[in-house]
Parts: sequence; structure tokens; C-alpha cells
Amino acid sequence: MSIYQAPIEDYQFLYRDVFKLNEFWQHSTNFTDATDDMVDSILDEADKICRQVLLPINASGDAEGCHFDLTQTPPVHTPKGFVEAYQSFSENGWFGLCGSQEYGAMGFPKSVGVMFEEMLYATNCSFTLYLGLTTGVSQALLNHASDELKQKYLPKLYSGEYSGSMCLTEPHAGTNLGSIRTKAVPISATDQFEITGNKIFITAGEHDLSKNIIHLVLARIEGEPEGNKGISLFLVSKFNEDEQGNLTNNNHVQCTNIEHKMGIKASATCALSFEKSKGVLIGKKNQGLQAMFTMMNFERLSIAVQGLGLGDIAWQNALEYAKEREQGQTKYGNNLLAFGDVRRMLKVQEVLSQGARCLAIFISHKLDQYKDTQDEKINSQVALLTPVVKAFLTDRGFESTVLAQQIYGGHGFIQETGAEQYVRDARIAQIYEGTNGVQALDFLGRKVAFDQAVVLKKFTNELFAEMQTWQLEDQFVNYSEQLELGFTEFLSCTNKLLAQKDKLDFTINAVCTDYLDGFGYLMYGYFYLKMINQIDSGSQRTEFIENKKQNTHFYFQKLFTRMKMHVQNVNNGAQSLLH
Amino acid sequence: MSIYQAPIEDYQFLYRDVFKLNEFWQHSTNFTDATDDMVDSILDEADKICRQVLLPINASGDAEGCHFDLTQTPPVHTPKGFVEAYQSFSENGWFGLCGSQEYGAMGFPKSVGVMFEEMLYATNCSFTLYLGLTTGVSQALLNHASDELKQKYLPKLYSGEYSGSMCLTEPHAGTNLGSIRTKAVPISATDQFEITGNKIFITAGEHDLSKNIIHLVLARIEGEPEGNKGISLFLVSKFNEDEQGNLTNNNHVQCTNIEHKMGIKASATCALSFEKSKGVLIGKKNQGLQAMFTMMNFERLSIAVQGLGLGDIAWQNALEYAKEREQGQTKYGNNLLAFGDVRRMLKVQEVLSQGARCLAIFISHKLDQYKDTQDEKINSQVALLTPVVKAFLTDRGFESTVLAQQIYGGHGFIQETGAEQYVRDARIAQIYEGTNGVQALDFLGRKVAFDQAVVLKKFTNELFAEMQTWQLEDQFVNYSEQLELGFTEFLSCTNKLLAQKDKLDFTINAVCTDYLDGFGYLMYGYFYLKMINQIDSGSQRTEFIENKKQNTHFYFQKLFTRMKMHVQNVNNGAQSLLH
Repeated sequence: MSIYQAPIEDYQFLYRDVFKLNEFWQHSTNFTDATDDMVDSILDEADKICRQVLLPINASGDAEGCHFDLTQTPPVHTPKGFVEAYQSFSENGWFGLCGSQEYGAMGFPKSVGVMFEEMLYATNCSFTLYLGLTTGVSQALLNHASDELKQKYLPKLYSGEYSGSMCLTEPHAGTNLGSIRTKAVPISATDQFEITGNKIFITAGEHDLSKNIIHLVLARIEGEPEGNKGISLFLVSKFNEDEQGNLTNNNHVQCTNIEHKMGIKASATCALSFEKSKGVLIGKKNQGLQAMFTMMNFERLSIAVQGLGLGDIAWQNALEYAKEREQGQTKYGNNLLAFGDVRRMLKVQEVLSQGARCLAIFISHKLDQYKDTQDEKINSQVALLTPVVKAFLTDRGFESTVLAQQIYGGHGFIQETGAEQYVRDARIAQIYEGTNGVQALDFLGRKVAFDQAVVLKKFTNELFAEMQTWQLEDQFVNYSEQLELGFTEFLSCTNKLLAQKDKLDFTINAVCTDYLDGFGYLMYGYFYLKMINQIDSGSQRTEFIENKKQNTHFYFQKLFTRMKMHVQNVNNGAQSLLH
Repeated sequence: MSIYQAPIEDYQFLYRDVFKLNEFWQHSTNFTDATDDMVDSILDEADKICRQVLLPINASGDAEGCHFDLTQTPPVHTPKGFVEAYQSFSENGWFGLCGSQEYGAMGFPKSVGVMFEEMLYATNCSFTLYLGLTTGVSQALLNHASDELKQKYLPKLYSGEYSGSMCLTEPHAGTNLGSIRTKAVPISATDQFEITGNKIFITAGEHDLSKNIIHLVLARIEGEPEGNKGISLFLVSKFNEDEQGNLTNNNHVQCTNIEHKMGIKASATCALSFEKSKGVLIGKKNQGLQAMFTMMNFERLSIAVQGLGLGDIAWQNALEYAKEREQGQTKYGNNLLAFGDVRRMLKVQEVLSQGARCLAIFISHKLDQYKDTQDEKINSQVALLTPVVKAFLTDRGFESTVLAQQIYGGHGFIQETGAEQYVRDARIAQIYEGTNGVQALDFLGRKVAFDQAVVLKKFTNELFAEMQTWQLEDQFVNYSEQLELGFTEFLSCTNKLLAQKDKLDFTINAVCTDYLDGFGYLMYGYFYLKMINQIDSGSQRTEFIENKKQNTHFYFQKLFTRMKMHVQNVNNGAQSLLH
């Protein structure tokens, strides 16, 4: 079976020494419960429940998959052990870790939630999606629903009694949500609607884990405009409730099939049919997409962490395998670590994990800061960085799982080692919640080009100002110069893009992936040097510190070189794609 | 169902205009049958049988997989349609396309064989392995077996009546073949041996496709030295034959299990147990590894073509999907091709395919030249380039299948579109026949460093000399300068590696993958400009020519930039991996 150890020491280093989150929590309005002791104990408990409850049913869940049978109630059953695991997470309150205390949750910072999510995705990606969709729906209701609906549903979602799903995609409409056909017809003399239509790719749309499922459904109210401007968001529950909150009849939400997929096989990906199902409007009429998008920052960060978690556990297991696998005596040892190329692959994975962890925690902290301060500058930075974290961490996560699999040789291709499951499970993260191409276009198009890079430049100016204050050991000064030069080249490449008029939109789309990747590698460079700068050289943690130093060298010598390539590709334009 | 169209126009351009293979065939000793008409007709027929017979059973074969049941005879059954497909290839003589005419095969050049193999792997990777192992065993026997054994087995292998397998790996010994434990004990008063041991990961080790299976088995003769120096190669047939060639009793070769794998599920990957099975020595005693390695050039080229074929069919289908998938009207169209990032991904795939095709045909032609001339310079170039073609084409092939899958969005992750099968099937090519890390070490360590880059420099000098004769249109001259500069930087980086004494072997291992990749991108650059140089500008094939020109621009603007990065990574050394 796979091994796993949550990177607790890294979390502590990041939240205390590097980002000093605990100083912020202590002086915040919302997060004073998050003392060091409390957070450390949460991290320990989270590590334990993930390792003990989720890890053992990860491979078996993949092998068994979900079951679809219309003669059963419900028609979707999750694999062996999932019901008990769900119950265990529910009983221990984990669904409400970062939810609103007003409605019975624990109210911890999202940055702590991100560390928890890394462990969840690492130990059981499929299971995590049931939990993740539920907290996503809670988040949406908290932001957009009426007080009455919040009172009614949030406590049950935070306890796990109810779970959630988001119903966006239709067979003909993936990225292009403006073209959806699901209809909402007002029920006269009520504030309810009848929802009718077909949705596909609905993660956790049906299953046997919770008493009820709260679907958030995008639909068009009859008579409202075509396209994006006529889309509204509805709450449609699987079962109706009476006034006392007891479940009554079902609400004509029918799961018509589940998908057979490359990975995340224990996660039920459902086709749902709504047939005059009762729905309640969430947020304002025709502003469904906006309501969805406010939640997207959280969801996309979560999917980013899927890449991180899977990349990290894949690396942990590959490292263990490399240590154990004998390969003949050489002067560098008798296991796979004697081989430089094996060590290179492992180091790429490790270094990508540690960089990803920084970026995920960095952004989650900004979400917390925004919640506390409502500072629009922070909010704009979250908007800027969200597509980056989603695409970059999932692309790098996939890369890491593939490298990890490679370490095993032929054994990595057969199912019993578990390495190939990580590859298959990581693959979807590059695709769902908006493909990574959509993220890249969002980043360069909407977040950079549309406001003439104002937010980007303010943000990089902040980083620059911070970098000037760093006092780095001599061995790292050269990297700091490379990093500054890199940012300068990146901004100059940005200016060139903004100056260009002709076929701007096609060009932007054609270069956006390289642009996002270039920025991602710059950010990791910034994080590595920030870590080096924040290392307490008086600390006793010699091994930990040496590892960070080595990883920083490796990062700048072997991975930062990709940044230059991506920027060069952006500068080379899109002419060769036009004809 | 997936579509496929063999790239016949590209093959013809390459064999006639670019590499002028037909001029060589015409004046060769061995290949005068390969007239243009004959080759064109082979390519057409090959395209037809692959498309009509193999493509329809590719997805179904993946879904069904192979069956293992010890109560059945044989214990392994291939999926529906495989027996009939095998028969069809057998009846039409395809097993013997490039085999020796002396033993009943057709004797066509390996370069034509490579084109055929691309179609095979594209349309049904799993099926192709049964055929590929059989031709690999034929090749080994042709080179190393006695006349008597050749007479006995080659006609049956060329007809497909018998099939082949290669039995190298043991549970504890993958790359490290010197540690294998399978024993060979001489049977007194005969020239036979009793072979006893366990082999794993044996592709086509057992199945229901052929009357008999010829296993080539690595084993150590009792009393011979430990390590690489004591390994011999044996022919062990599944069934024994009487003197008339009729099958008699079985030879105690037992399939004990088949693997459950990430991909190539219709290819039976067997664990085989040999229990005093009768074996005949092939080649000289204790020279089994050498005998295996002479065959490896062919096998590794074949696996390289797996990467090419799968990358190409994945691209063909993704392109078709992008054309058909409507995504809202924009000024660049209403399908996915309106999006620059989609077009970028498709172009990367297309350009990698066309580059790969060049390299595969280039090397196969050198194999043909060597067969005809026994020129050791050619042979040394084949040895130099073989690890490059194996690793580079399979890595790029995997990259292409992943990009193709990405085009489909969520639909690419579910099984019905077929895109995810290509990813899973392509993945193994990076692992088997020597992992790509082993290829990279072979390239930089054995083929470059061990002879102080003499062969490499002779080879690049030839390319340089040729490049001086090119007369390129102005729009391509800049690329030609970049290419020369690239080669210069690559050679200078090579010299630095050779000059370095300290920890040379660890460094070489740690940088070998970047080194191989850098060289691969240089070679593709060479091929793109060579194609441009050989284009007959008077030709009527305007669209074909425009495509090559556009792809050359794209290659140098977007992919050749990777070369610089890899060379930089090599120059940055391995210090950051040592501790």
C-alpha cells in the first residue's frame, strides 16, 4: 500500500517563518481562534484521519469504481468503505473546518484549509471531491443566499448531513456556459421555479453518502436574454423538505448515468436530468454566472491543491521505492538513488511540490486577508493569481506524477504499485474547473490585458520592494539577480503584448499558456528565495534548512531555465499559427 | 469511433524528395524490389488493412482486455477480434514485410517497415506488440541462430504461424540484467539445455493467436560467471516439435499470471515460469546480452515509432474534434480552432509528429545502408542515434497524446472519445525497452562520453557540411543560423562534460536526459530545414508545401527554444543533486 506523511514541518515553516500567517491571525477579526497550538493540532489530526481513513480505500476505490444501477436506491453507490469514511469526516466536523461560525462551522482560515486539502487530495482524490463540492456549495450559499436559506442549509452542509454538487455543464456546452438550455419557469404565487434540463459531468451529483444533495444549477429563466446575460443560479435539492426540515418526496432530479473515466473512478461523475424540479433562485436574477465566479476562486484553488497533493504523494512513494529497489552496487550506493537521473526526477518532483505549496498558501492567505479587510487591492490580486495557481499547480502536479511513475520502471505501469493511479487522478485537474487553456486566457486576457496590466504591475512592484529588503547569503545572490531580471523581462514582454493592436485577441489566446507558465516559474523563484531569506539560521533544524538550500539551488539551476523559454515563446508571437 | 488516415503524402515526400531513399534502393544490393510503385502500393495496402482491421478493435480491445484463466487452453485469451485480425495479417504476409527473402519473407527496407509500423501502432498499439515481438525474434534468429534453426523457425515466424516473445526481466531484475537467476543446465549427450526460472513483464508471452510461441530467454548456464559476463540466450518454444515439424508435447512453459496495467490492455503482459524447459543456445555461450543488444536497435526504433504513431492518431482525432465542436461565434470562427491556445496545442502535436517521422525514417535508412554496405561508420551512427530516437519520440509522443486529450476538455477524460486510451497506451513506450532514463545514459555515457564524442562529432560534421550546401529562402535563413549556433553550443557543452573529471559518472547520469532532449530538438531543427531545402518549389502541392513552411516557422519559434533550455540545464551541472 502507498505510504503518506503530511508535510507538517513544511506547513509550520511556511505559516510561521515564511508568510507569518500566525501574526495576521492573531490580529485579525475572523481568525483569532487560529493559535499556533490549535493549528498544529488540526494539522496533526488531519494527517491522522487522512492516513488512517482515506489512504486505505484509495486504491480499492479506484479498482472498484462507482456503481450505477437504476433498480437501486440511490442509483449510484460509492466503493466499499466510502460511506464509513464520509461518516467519520462528518462526525469529526471536518466539513466545517473553514465554514462560517455563525452557522455552526469552525471558521478556520482558508490557508489552514489548503493544508488540509493537500492531505485529502493526496490520500484520496476521489473521496475529496465529495467533500470539496459540499464546501464549495456552502461557500456559494454563504455569499449569495438569503438568510433563511443559509439557516436552513448551511448547518447541514457543514455537518456533512447534506452534501453538494454544482450543475453547470450540458452536453453541448462546456466552457461556453452562455449557451446552456436548462430552463427555469416561475411557479406562480411562490418564489420558486420549476427547473427542467440535462446536465453532464456533475461531480458528486448522486451517491449514497449523505441524506440529501443540494444542487446548485445554472439555468435560464423563461423569457430572459440569450447568452451569458440570461443565466441564473438555483438551489435544487434532491429531496424536498417539509417545514420541520424532514425529507419528504423526491424532487425529480434523476441520475441517468455515470461516466467511465480515465481516473478519479471512485468519484461519481453524473448525468442528471431535472424534470420540473423545484428550485430557489440564489443571488440575483440573470447574475448566475457572476455568483458562480465568486465561488470559483475557492474552487480553482482547491483543484490546484489536487495537483499539489497528488504530486506530493506520488513523489513520497517514488522516493521510498527508489530507496528500497536494489540495482547493483555502484560507488554511489546500491539502490536507485545511485543514479543521477533518478535523483534528478525525484528532485524535480520535490521542488515542484514545495513551490506549489508556497503559491497555494500565499493565495489562500490573500483570501483570508480579503475576508478580514475587504481590501479591493487584495481581492484583485486573488483574481489575478487564481488562474495561475489552478493551471500551474495542476500541470506541474501531473508532471510530478508522471515522473514518479517513471521511477518504478515497468512496475509503475501495473496497477499494484499505485503510481499509475496518481497519474490518472491528476490528469483531470488540468481539465475540469475550466481547462488550463481557459485559465491561461483568463490570466493574460481578462486579468492582465483588459486592465492594461495595472494589477499585475502593482503586484510585482510589491514583490520587488520586498526583494530589495532581502539579505541573502552570497551563494543565493546570483539567483536574486536572475529573478529580478526575469521579472523585468516578463514585464517587458507584457508591455509588448499590450502595445500590439493587430489581431490582439488571437495572439493573446495563442501565447497565454506560455505567458502563464513563465509567470508561474517566476513566482516559484520568488518563493524559494523568500524561504531562504526567512530561514532562521540559528534554528536547530539543520536537515530541513539544508534541504531548502539545496532545493533552491536545484530550482534555479534546473527549473527556472524554463521561465526564459516560455517568455521567449511569448515574444515569438502567434504569427506561425495564422494562415 | 476514432478516425485515421496514414500520412502517405508525407511518407512519399520523405522517401523521394527529402531523403531520396528510392535512389539508394535502386542501386542497393538488397532492396531493388523497392520501386516507387511497389512501395506506394505497400503503403496504400498497409493503410487499408490497419484502418479496416485494426482500428475497429482498438477501443473494444482496451475495454475488454486480455483474459487469464488457468482452466482454459491456452490460459490467455486476447479480446474479441484479435484472432481474426492476426489471421488476416498472417494471410497477407505482413509479418514478413522486412524479413529475409532467403527464408520466405519479402525483404523490404526497414525504412518502409517503419512507415508500416507507424500505421500499426496508431491504429492498434496492443495488437502491434504481438506482431512486433514476432519480427523482433525473427531478427534475432536471423543474426545469431544456426542455419538449421533459421530453416526451422524463420518461415513460420514470417508467416505468423508461430509468434515470438523475449524473456529478459525477472521480478528483482529489470534494467540490471546481470543479476538474473534463470538457470540453464546442459542436457548430457545433446546440444540442449534445461531452462528453469521465472520471468515477468513478458509481452506476448502467452496468447491464443498463433500455433506456437518462440521465446528467447536470457539465462545463466550453470557454473558460468556472475553478472553480465555469464548470461546466454536460449530459444525455448512453447510446444516441442517432432522431426517433421509437428507440434508434440508442451515444453513446461507456464503462464502464471498476466498484469493489470494502465494501458496496452489488449496486449498480454505475462509472468512465465520455465521448469526444465528444453532450450537451444542462440549465439555464443555467455554472450546473450550482446546478442540481445544487436536486436535492440531494431526494437528500440520500433518502440520509438509507437510514440510517433500514437501521437499522430491522437492529433488527427483531436483536430477533427476541434473542427466539429462548436464553441460560440467569434471573428475567428465558431469551433475550437478559433482559439489560439487550441490551435497552438494542435500545432505542437502536428509538428512533433512530422519531426519524429523524419528521425525514425532517417535512422531506419541507416539500418538499411548498414545492411547493404556493412559500413562501420553507419553502424556507429545507428548506435549513437538509437537511444535518442527511442527516448525522444516516446516522450514527445506522450506529450502529444496528453495535448490531444486536452483539446476535448472533459470529454477527453471519459473513455468513449478514445483520447484517454492514447495517453495510457503511449505511456508505456517511455518505460519499456529500457526506460528513457536508461536511453539517455546510454546516449551520453556509452555513445558519447566513452569514445570522447568521436562518433558524435563525425556525425555533426556531416550535418554541418550538408547544411552549408542548403539554399534556403530568406524567411528561413535566420533559423539556419540558429541551428548552427545550437549545434555549436551543444558541442561546446559536450566538450565541457568530457573535460570534467570529478564525479563524471554521476554528473553524466544526472544531466543525460537534458542532454538527449537538447540533441533531439537540434535534430528536428535539422530535419525541418532539410525538408524546406528539398521542397520542389515547382510542385503543384501548394497546400502540402505551405504546411511544411508554416510548421518550420512554428518549430523554430515555439519548440526550438526548448533546446537552449536543455543545454543550459546540462551546463548547470549536477552539483545541486549531490549532498
